[in-house]
Amino acid sequence: MGTSANAAAGGRGNPVDKGVDYAQYFCTYAFLYHQKEMLSDRVRMDAYFNAIFENKHHFNGKTVLDVGTGSGILAIWSAQAGARKVYAVEATKMSEHARSLVRANNLQNIVEVIEGSMEEITLPEKVDVIISEWMGYFLLRESMFDSVICARDRWLKPTGVMYPSHARMWMAPIRTGIGDHKMGDYQSAMDDWHNFVDETKTYYGVDMSTLTKPFSEEQRKYYLQTSLWSNLHPHQVIGTAAIIKEIDCLTATVNDIEKVRSKFSLSITMDNMLCGFGGWFDVHFRGRGEDPAEQEIELTTAPSVDCGTHWGQQVFLLHPPTHVNEGDNLTISFLMSRSKENHRLMEVELGCEIQQHSGKLLAPSKHKYYIE
Amino acid sequence: MGTSANAAAGGRGNPVDKGVDYAQYFCTYAFLYHQKEMLSDRVRMDAYFNAIFENKHHFNGKTVLDVGTGSGILAIWSAQAGARKVYAVEATKMSEHARSLVRANNLQNIVEVIEGSMEEITLPEKVDVIISEWMGYFLLRESMFDSVICARDRWLKPTGVMYPSHARMWMAPIRTGIGDHKMGDYQSAMDDWHNFVDETKTYYGVDMSTLTKPFSEEQRKYYLQTSLWSNLHPHQVIGTAAIIKEIDCLTATVNDIEKVRSKFSLSITMDNMLCGFGGWFDVHFRGRGEDPAEQEIELTTAPSVDCGTHWGQQVFLLHPPTHVNEGDNLTISFLMSRSKENHRLMEVELGCEIQQHSGKLLAPSKHKYYIE
Repeated sequence: MGTSANAAAGGRGNPVDKGVDYAQYFCTYAFLYHQKEMLSDRVRMDAYFNAIFENKHHFNGKTVLDVGTGSGILAIWSAQAGARKVYAVEATKMSEHARSLVRANNLQNIVEVIEGSMEEITLPEKVDVIISEWMGYFLLRESMFDSVICARDRWLKPTGVMYPSHARMWMAPIRTGIGDHKMGDYQSAMDDWHNFVDETKTYYGVDMSTLTKPFSEEQRKYYLQTSLWSNLHPHQVIGTAAIIKEIDCLTATVNDIEKVRSKFSLSITMDNMLCGFGGWFDVHFRGRGEDPAEQEIELTTAPSVDCGTHWGQQVFLLHPPTHVNEGDNLTISFLMSRSKENHRLMEVELGCEIQQHSGKLLAPSKHKYYIE
Repeated sequence: MGTSANAAAGGRGNPVDKGVDYAQYFCTYAFLYHQKEMLSDRVRMDAYFNAIFENKHHFNGKTVLDVGTGSGILAIWSAQAGARKVYAVEATKMSEHARSLVRANNLQNIVEVIEGSMEEITLPEKVDVIISEWMGYFLLRESMFDSVICARDRWLKPTGVMYPSHARMWMAPIRTGIGDHKMGDYQSAMDDWHNFVDETKTYYGVDMSTLTKPFSEEQRKYYLQTSLWSNLHPHQVIGTAAIIKEIDCLTATVNDIEKVRSKFSLSITMDNMLCGFGGWFDVHFRGRGEDPAEQEIELTTAPSVDCGTHWGQQVFLLHPPTHVNEGDNLTISFLMSRSKENHRLMEVELGCEIQQHSGKLLAPSKHKYYIE
């Protein structure tokens, strides 16, 4: 969605207008229903719960900052794990519910809920731990990690630890029936458009054919080029998965993540139709070198039968699908950058070159996607 | 949806931040798909087409201003009906498509497309006609008429005409199965919530019961108190319809429409369940007293078998439904005002007193609704 002003663009050199950022992004987090959806994600909850309670040495008697506390859950667990003081920062009016929840669980002497953005609020002291559940679809959608970096640079002690400590983006080749549906939807939309143009000329004397090209581009973007949420079954993964990006949460800068540029190989492990690519992420709770976790915890959003999460995976469709064989190799060039109109949304340029197991190299293809 | 700042509130004393207004409102109109939906509404198209072409005397050799031109359709028709000059104002980048459409229809010498808001742009002259399709659900949702009033006060000649010239809001008692569905949805959401609270206490040691009240209020608002779009069948109307509000587009002020306050009677015409109220509007193209239309055209969005529009009607549910009999009378007190957080959305306070045909007066009830 375009905006008439650059105000919503965001990014380091171009601060986002607060009201616009609220209307476009923050507002959904002010709903209890949305918080409940995330709190009902058992894989997510178990990972953070275990990361904290199996590593109490990081929390006991320590100071903690929860970036984007939402309902306050991570702050409450941190306090229950023995923290001396927890600062729970939340940009939306959800902070009022967090405050109420803290009090109902008798932790108001430890957990201080602060309403405001990480970029604006001040704390009375630096902290030993920054904990945050900041991950969006495919890890970086929402660009919330920027706020965690800001928090870290301003408020983490030199000896402090990040929870999670590491994050990775992954991609694998997949098969899916969704592509055919979306192509059908696109073609229906175009058929309908052509009828519409005819009727508008016939009944209303206005020739709309000049809009056919922009309409088809708009529909193409919507149906074919916008990444889709899906809960992929492992059987849909038809080749090896590769790491696109690795992030050390203690040292990463906004510059490191503003553009994600990578070249990697994927091997096909079964004869099948290559319908597109699935993207997901994992995070780890490892503490830091000098102060490691006693129990390393992993939170993964890889395709799974039983352990699906509310993040699902992001599906990037190929039109048309292409037949591939076991042993074929895909060389993928990947570039993800932030949308000019909204820094919390992404654009992806993906190049794909298939080398068949015979050695024959097929013509490379280039694809543009939007993570909306 | 609440905002953290008053910037989005809008209204006369409280200008809306442009970027926020775009993110919350204007942006959907920048999509061709959305324009096409409106252009495919034959009842809407026929009404405006006939209003213009059966009243060419208002357009021939005249100057016209199209407020919120979108794709440019009304501006193009005005030119085809003989206008000397048409100013077509559009706030979004849809203006580029309008410009392209004007050119493709060889009207670039008559129609000048101007990108900007009515409140900001300037015209080189005053106009004879202001034409606009500004009506939102239940007439005033979107508060676009404010921009038409602004245009009229700044740019309409003292002898000018408004297209449409009049608008009315209507309400009638209805029966519908939707209410039961929504109550079921609400109860499911609450059952699910209670399970969630139990599990969160059991597995994660956090007592969320303090959030039950705000959660139920949020869900109640969402499922039971938010007006619904519906395409009502005339058989669902179980009593007489009443006019809530009449607007003379030539003289109405923002003050006249900021709050819609009305008291009216509805008679029940068949024994049935009173499940709620349907709200809709009509507009008329009558010209002005001294310069009337030759052919008066009506555009109505009343419940209809064949002539439904994309506006449908707005349904305000009663929970629980109540049995009524032919001859029962409802006295309705109605107050619609703009949402503090977003002046383009509405809140409704509706009081209902039933006098049974026997003369017996039942206890009055009060209801709060949100038009989102």
